[in-house]
Amino acid sequence: MNLSLISEKLGIPEWRLRGAIKRHSVQVLGYRGREVLVFRKDVAGVERGTVVFGDEVVRGYPKIKRALLLSAALRSWKAEQVAVEEKLNGYNVRAALVDSRVVGVTRGGYVCPYTTSKLREARECRRLLEDNPELMLCGEAVGTSNPYVVHEYPEAGEFGFFVFDVRHRDTNEPLSIPEKRRLLEEYGVQGVPLLGVFRREEAADRVLEIAQRLGAEGREGVVLKDWEMVEEPLKYTPSQTNLSDLRHAFAYPYDYGRDFLFSRIIREAYIAVEREMKGEELSDAAAALGRSILLPMVESIRRVMKGEVLGESYELEFRSEEELLEMLEFLRRQGVSVQVEVLEEGGRRVRLKKLRHASTDRIRAVLRSGT
Amino acid sequence: MNLSLISEKLGIPEWRLRGAIKRHSVQVLGYRGREVLVFRKDVAGVERGTVVFGDEVVRGYPKIKRALLLSAALRSWKAEQVAVEEKLNGYNVRAALVDSRVVGVTRGGYVCPYTTSKLREARECRRLLEDNPELMLCGEAVGTSNPYVVHEYPEAGEFGFFVFDVRHRDTNEPLSIPEKRRLLEEYGVQGVPLLGVFRREEAADRVLEIAQRLGAEGREGVVLKDWEMVEEPLKYTPSQTNLSDLRHAFAYPYDYGRDFLFSRIIREAYIAVEREMKGEELSDAAAALGRSILLPMVESIRRVMKGEVLGESYELEFRSEEELLEMLEFLRRQGVSVQVEVLEEGGRRVRLKKLRHASTDRIRAVLRSGT
Repeated sequence: MNLSLISEKLGIPEWRLRGAIKRHSVQVLGYRGREVLVFRKDVAGVERGTVVFGDEVVRGYPKIKRALLLSAALRSWKAEQVAVEEKLNGYNVRAALVDSRVVGVTRGGYVCPYTTSKLREARECRRLLEDNPELMLCGEAVGTSNPYVVHEYPEAGEFGFFVFDVRHRDTNEPLSIPEKRRLLEEYGVQGVPLLGVFRREEAADRVLEIAQRLGAEGREGVVLKDWEMVEEPLKYTPSQTNLSDLRHAFAYPYDYGRDFLFSRIIREAYIAVEREMKGEELSDAAAALGRSILLPMVESIRRVMKGEVLGESYELEFRSEEELLEMLEFLRRQGVSVQVEVLEEGGRRVRLKKLRHASTDRIRAVLRSGT
Repeated sequence: MNLSLISEKLGIPEWRLRGAIKRHSVQVLGYRGREVLVFRKDVAGVERGTVVFGDEVVRGYPKIKRALLLSAALRSWKAEQVAVEEKLNGYNVRAALVDSRVVGVTRGGYVCPYTTSKLREARECRRLLEDNPELMLCGEAVGTSNPYVVHEYPEAGEFGFFVFDVRHRDTNEPLSIPEKRRLLEEYGVQGVPLLGVFRREEAADRVLEIAQRLGAEGREGVVLKDWEMVEEPLKYTPSQTNLSDLRHAFAYPYDYGRDFLFSRIIREAYIAVEREMKGEELSDAAAALGRSILLPMVESIRRVMKGEVLGESYELEFRSEEELLEMLEFLRRQGVSVQVEVLEEGGRRVRLKKLRHASTDRIRAVLRSGT
């Protein structure tokens, strides 16, 4: 591998890259006969999730700050306008060309075979990337048929890919919102919905309204962006989304980090303060929070009492048995333990159950010892 | 200091003790002109909280296991009988003679000047210890006037000390329950209430009843003990106690460890399962949990918005200004930040406010930045 060329492309000193490889902050893997670097941590300003195939760079998607209090977060906003895009509930994917073929890279920097196969069915993405190979499409993969986040979107069906950013793959430089929209429209690639553009002064109130409406419809939230993409974007999610995250996490209470749980609990307090809740409204919000925590935990304990192994099921369709086996190998390497149930002769339609061993084992131990 | 003599008394190799001192697992301090060792961690089977004054040992109070599910925890219980003592809501103190005078040692192994002064007013404790200097009294200091845990007990008033274990101070060997009760009665020293002795088979049901009654009365819980003190004891607290802990902790959400919060949340799930809650009862329990989490957080955020510094206030009476200053110095060394308000001419009655800087600062930062 030409580390000197890669360092130059990434704009970091070569010794930093070598050091990071030695410390395993950058992992060296293989993909289709090429050596691949995967950044497991930020290194000298290059984002976690960055991946280099031979000498083809796909920069990591940058972390987006979360607004806990919209009004306060927008006070330090400098741009006059705030563009509000919908944040969809799926998984973050970067689509780019590698060896002239589309690949789907996960947030962590791994090529997901299932996502890659689905993206390759989308001719529009491929054409856009073939004409602009220096770009990558950063988007949310959503729908009912994927092995990560199942959420029903009428507009997506089993699998949809909605682009939120178009960026230069070597530098992570984003297109401005109008440039992005023009390009996506030209090629017929779906972007995430643009829900409005507001003057900074009125944005907090309008965004709160929008977020509440989205929450009521079971949709995740919003990302606030500067029209020119100079200002740092901000994400914001309504209470319903936090509670839904908590319901999921507390179903597997020993599999999630304490910080994951805690941060979602604390968000509810800031929402209640910003919305000036009191009396019955506040008490109802508290009750809803409590139910999102206790009920899934109680249900999981009862499942384990009945002998079940906890886990989530995903129904997926593969184009070939080979593709299924490749996906299973990918999940195994990610440390995910799955049970496979074939739903159809020939093995192309399967149910994957991701097993939550940590929670199952810990709950079993408490049921046995009582302590 | 004679480390060889101390090692022998503690029954550990001298090199282990020297190593622990080097690694700061054992701290070397001074107390009234003597060198003192404080065990900040378990070392070779000697408990955290053990303290050695010159060559006078006071062993640390052993960690008591918590029953999450009573029925399961008692299944592995071997003794035929289960004695149920009340667990009072205060702070754990060991009273022992040092230089022929009573001292009150905190759980962590520090001599608390305030507690020591209060214990010295109790003639009964002193007489018991003077006649049995090889013993220590392990008890709960409770009441409305202390700088740690304020809880109203009609039987305790401002300050009460209730013994739950009598142990040999060098070896930590406990007296059996009948020996302990005989000794406490002989000297007129108060023990914690003995709430019943049950056959193992019926104990889980009876303890659940007792715990629910205690919870309804705002009392903390129980400790299950073997009459002979051979079996490992078990503590159990009702839902009300967990919720009250959570209310307190979520008032200072960034001052408490995530594990502290998480463990108390998860206890509620096991209680709901053991009590076979469903439908409305389960939903009400969840709502109560949610209120214990959300309402104190919201209140604290609002206090910080108004410019307050978060903290808890304690009203204390000292016998002299010197004693007050000694206590302030003690708290300062423990890393506790306090504000003092003198309530009475002469400065003997004061209000101490323990400041919760971590939560105040973090909430302030969110209010300012919104993120």
